Amino acid sequence: MWPEFKRRKLEGYLEAKKRNEVDEDIIPLLDLINSFEDFVTLSSCSGRIAVMDMPEFGDKVEAKFLGKWHRCVSFEEVFEAIKKGKQTTWLMMFPPIIHVACRDLESAEKLMTIANNAGLRRSGLISLKHNVVEINSLERLEVPVAIEGRMIVGEEGLRVMVEFANKKLKRSKEKLKRLYDLLLRLSPQGSPKL
Amino acid sequence: MWPEFKRRKLEGYLEAKKRNEVDEDIIPLLDLINSFEDFVTLSSCSGRIAVMDMPEFGDKVEAKFLGKWHRCVSFEEVFEAIKKGKQTTWLMMFPPIIHVACRDLESAEKLMTIANNAGLRRSGLISLKHNVVEINSLERLEVPVAIEGRMIVGEEGLRVMVEFANKKLKRSKEKLKRLYDLLLRLSPQGSPKL
Repeated sequence: MWPEFKRRKLEGYLEAKKRNEVDEDIIPLLDLINSFEDFVTLSSCSGRIAVMDMPEFGDKVEAKFLGKWHRCVSFEEVFEAIKKGKQTTWLMMFPPIIHVACRDLESAEKLMTIANNAGLRRSGLISLKHNVVEINSLERLEVPVAIEGRMIVGEEGLRVMVEFANKKLKRSKEKLKRLYDLLLRLSPQGSPKL
Repeated sequence: MWPEFKRRKLEGYLEAKKRNEVDEDIIPLLDLINSFEDFVTLSSCSGRIAVMDMPEFGDKVEAKFLGKWHRCVSFEEVFEAIKKGKQTTWLMMFPPIIHVACRDLESAEKLMTIANNAGLRRSGLISLKHNVVEINSLERLEVPVAIEGRMIVGEEGLRVMVEFANKKLKRSKEKLKRLYDLLLRLSPQGSPKL
């Protein structure tokens, strides 16, 4: 059961990696997680800053990305993206998120503990069918910045917000690094090769 | 084991309720959850809007509440609170959060499914020791609005943000209502008396 499930999911991961569909900066961590017999990654995002246009409050289905970055951004990049907004335009920072299926509850608990120790304090089991652990952090920024193309935040305010988004993204990525270090110590084979 | 654990935790809840330490609008839901043999609530917050002063980015240990409301707020209330800020002042909206210990994994899974169906999509098992399910939602607003007493968001911007905070709080509380309705249908004894 588990070996077959893991084999199938790992294949999916390796193919997504080949098609460049995996955030590059998170690949070493995903490879490391997958090098453990008891874990396999299902999906991931390494954290990002985005400018989004939304037709109606919270209606994310119809939300449109005006800009999306998996790295720190400049004020100018964000400002250019906001200028394209036609509805309610938000500046957002999303923390990293990784879904990992675990062989059993024991290994899931181990992973949750390690993730929490790395500072990823929004980690928990979200499905018991395949013991899926969601690794997640608390950093977040969600600010409405323009309405129908009109800025509702001044330039100085926007500069401060971009700076905070960058700081939060950096901090959340440091936690991924810490998770990598903690897992590496437990890894049976040292640095993984996939 | 479980009956004794539940008895002890339920006592704590009833005492906190007596001391008015439980958010009032969430009490019917907590009573209902506790009326199930398999569940007992450990802690909760019904969701809130807050103005917070923070000495350093994200340093929540030293963060100071300048205003805190478990209900929708007016622009004036928020503005008055922000004026007291001396450091980096944030307008925040936190969604409801409830921690529930469950008798076993099966009941924990049932609760997670119901919570997700109610729209509380950040729900998951956070501890396997007492099968603790965290019921949580996605609504969130975190905006830096002033630095050392100087506004970095204009009046119109702040009005929009307060409106969004209110909408998000309302929406998250509607999900608690939905959770209540879903649980009531499963309740063996109808409306709970505790």
